[in-house]
Amino acid sequence: MSKNISLILMGCGGVGRQLLQHIVSCRSLHAKQGIHLRVVGVSDSKSLLVASDAFTMELPDDFLLEVCRAKSNGASLSTLSGYGEFQVFTNSESTQKIVDVAAFLGKSTGLALVDCSASSDTIPVLTQAVDLDCCVVMANKKPLTSTMEDYDKLVSHPRHIRHESTVGAGLPVIASLNRILSSGDPVHRIIGSLSGTLGYVMSELEGGKLLSQVVHSAKNLGYTEPDPRDDLSGMDVARKALILARLLGQRINLDAIKIESLYPEEMAPSVMSIEDFLGSGLLLLDKNIQERVSKASLDGKVLRYVCVIEDSSCEVGIQELPKDSALGRLRGSDNVLEVYSRCYKDQPLVIQGAGAGNDTTAAGVLADIVDIQDLFR
Amino acid sequence: MSKNISLILMGCGGVGRQLLQHIVSCRSLHAKQGIHLRVVGVSDSKSLLVASDAFTMELPDDFLLEVCRAKSNGASLSTLSGYGEFQVFTNSESTQKIVDVAAFLGKSTGLALVDCSASSDTIPVLTQAVDLDCCVVMANKKPLTSTMEDYDKLVSHPRHIRHESTVGAGLPVIASLNRILSSGDPVHRIIGSLSGTLGYVMSELEGGKLLSQVVHSAKNLGYTEPDPRDDLSGMDVARKALILARLLGQRINLDAIKIESLYPEEMAPSVMSIEDFLGSGLLLLDKNIQERVSKASLDGKVLRYVCVIEDSSCEVGIQELPKDSALGRLRGSDNVLEVYSRCYKDQPLVIQGAGAGNDTTAAGVLADIVDIQDLFR
Repeated sequence: MSKNISLILMGCGGVGRQLLQHIVSCRSLHAKQGIHLRVVGVSDSKSLLVASDAFTMELPDDFLLEVCRAKSNGASLSTLSGYGEFQVFTNSESTQKIVDVAAFLGKSTGLALVDCSASSDTIPVLTQAVDLDCCVVMANKKPLTSTMEDYDKLVSHPRHIRHESTVGAGLPVIASLNRILSSGDPVHRIIGSLSGTLGYVMSELEGGKLLSQVVHSAKNLGYTEPDPRDDLSGMDVARKALILARLLGQRINLDAIKIESLYPEEMAPSVMSIEDFLGSGLLLLDKNIQERVSKASLDGKVLRYVCVIEDSSCEVGIQELPKDSALGRLRGSDNVLEVYSRCYKDQPLVIQGAGAGNDTTAAGVLADIVDIQDLFR
Repeated sequence: MSKNISLILMGCGGVGRQLLQHIVSCRSLHAKQGIHLRVVGVSDSKSLLVASDAFTMELPDDFLLEVCRAKSNGASLSTLSGYGEFQVFTNSESTQKIVDVAAFLGKSTGLALVDCSASSDTIPVLTQAVDLDCCVVMANKKPLTSTMEDYDKLVSHPRHIRHESTVGAGLPVIASLNRILSSGDPVHRIIGSLSGTLGYVMSELEGGKLLSQVVHSAKNLGYTEPDPRDDLSGMDVARKALILARLLGQRINLDAIKIESLYPEEMAPSVMSIEDFLGSGLLLLDKNIQERVSKASLDGKVLRYVCVIEDSSCEVGIQELPKDSALGRLRGSDNVLEVYSRCYKDQPLVIQGAGAGNDTTAAGVLADIVDIQDLFR
């Protein structure tokens, strides 16, 4: 007899769809481990589908796979109505419906809300679910990088929340830091390259290539967002840095982080079109970066775009680092994190590997879900 | 109101004593996390001390620190009798007494047996405790590298067992592998340098030093066991490899592992004294290793003493590895593990850091204890 872990998935983008596929393909593995992942609801930005009776029914596997197909074809969840025994709710009704299910299941068998969206809109329902004794598993960085008030609510039951995939995709970063912290080993410094895109860009510059060339190749390789400025702004790295800084106990907001953008304000998306940026703006940035690469190289150093979190500071930007450090040796799109603590004093704990991609991000979410099984009844 | 996590600690050597000190010094940290680690018993190889009423009483902190002082002065636990309200049991009575406490607490509030010994003698009490719904946390490698029958009993409730510190001290190796496996990401290759001593020895050879020189420096630095052959035999690495192989599902025993010893049988401890080995035997090994180092160097490779675990094989010995891989770059006494899976296919997941020392080993045990808190009532 397996233990049921009931879930509502919010967000059916690449990560959410991959998660559903992982859940279905892991059925026999999880049965061997004595658990059954019971998906009772799925939502996108427009609709929520919930099993008609979330206490006794779940969304069947063939339907979950149908959700994946429909969403990857760009259809909305609401087009699936008529498929099986579930109810469809519009966006405006969905928060209340999720809260109803959370109130019902949270105190009885347990329920986890799994947030694979990329939106701040989930914050109200997540905080209400936490109050109702539910668990929360997130790949979405927005809720944890909102106000301290929202953050405090979300982590008010620390054992009920998991968010490995908010930093470094499936890399065991949060799990490892939590282990270190819970053993009373104080972390006094984290330095990491947490953007596959910027990791690739900075390491390619070493060979003498120009920033504009490297950004174009990164875009062609599919490493960047559609508008590469979303990566070059450093904002995504700053959100990850904020999550790590708050985990270490810093009570700061995103605006307290010093963020170095790789482009000036006059090239911001609100001022310059993406075509103009890629066609001409980017070229204007080449010389300065090239000079910085050369200068660093004279000292045996390389440039890396990193987050640095220390006792009471959190910064994101370019740093000159020794060529032979774990960060300096970084190539390709891997993420690297170096953690310094009492136990890892002279030589850091290093965690390195693929830090992006739907497959590994969804695997991190799934590992988090399995990890909260002891909270279900 | 904190949740109690009741513990009996077996083994008061360096790791066990460090654990008791960590537990005492983490009191306020753990109180903030809503948990209280309640030590109800402590044993060494000769005696067991248990709180007179393990249901209502615990061993107080000043007594735990007294245990640390006494044990580090080489005294036996039994010399502490008369200190407070606890009972003393001899070795022959202790298993039954632990089982009694386990039967009592296991099904009510919960109990964890924490094995920081280095002995196979704990296996019977550990397996009985598992049957009684207790948790088991181990730094001791022996129980998990015993027969498959013992292993199967120990892991029969997979959520009730933690053993991070059996491989790589406090490095998050087991926790990370469990996450990968539970997310359905099949691990098809692990290669690691899991001996700080052998990591140091192999990396020092690259500079042209002789094996005998390097082993003597390692001994002087305190990196080796009193008899360095305990490290050079590869047996300790083989035990760690077996634990990893079994975690990946291989049903093998220690004798199925191909182990390369760095000294021949005619220099084994049963044949040659430690003085003769260090004085003359070791010198005879220099030439062969030196030739292997030179040969590897011609191909841009270095020698590393590693464990390699693949689908159905498990080997421990010297391998030629690329200079610029995570393992090839290894210096000093750090451990490194490279994990290849579906998500970490071309570039491995790499975990690196201090893999030995009482402080970090005990921190790993403590993180395991905190991690099982949801199983306590």
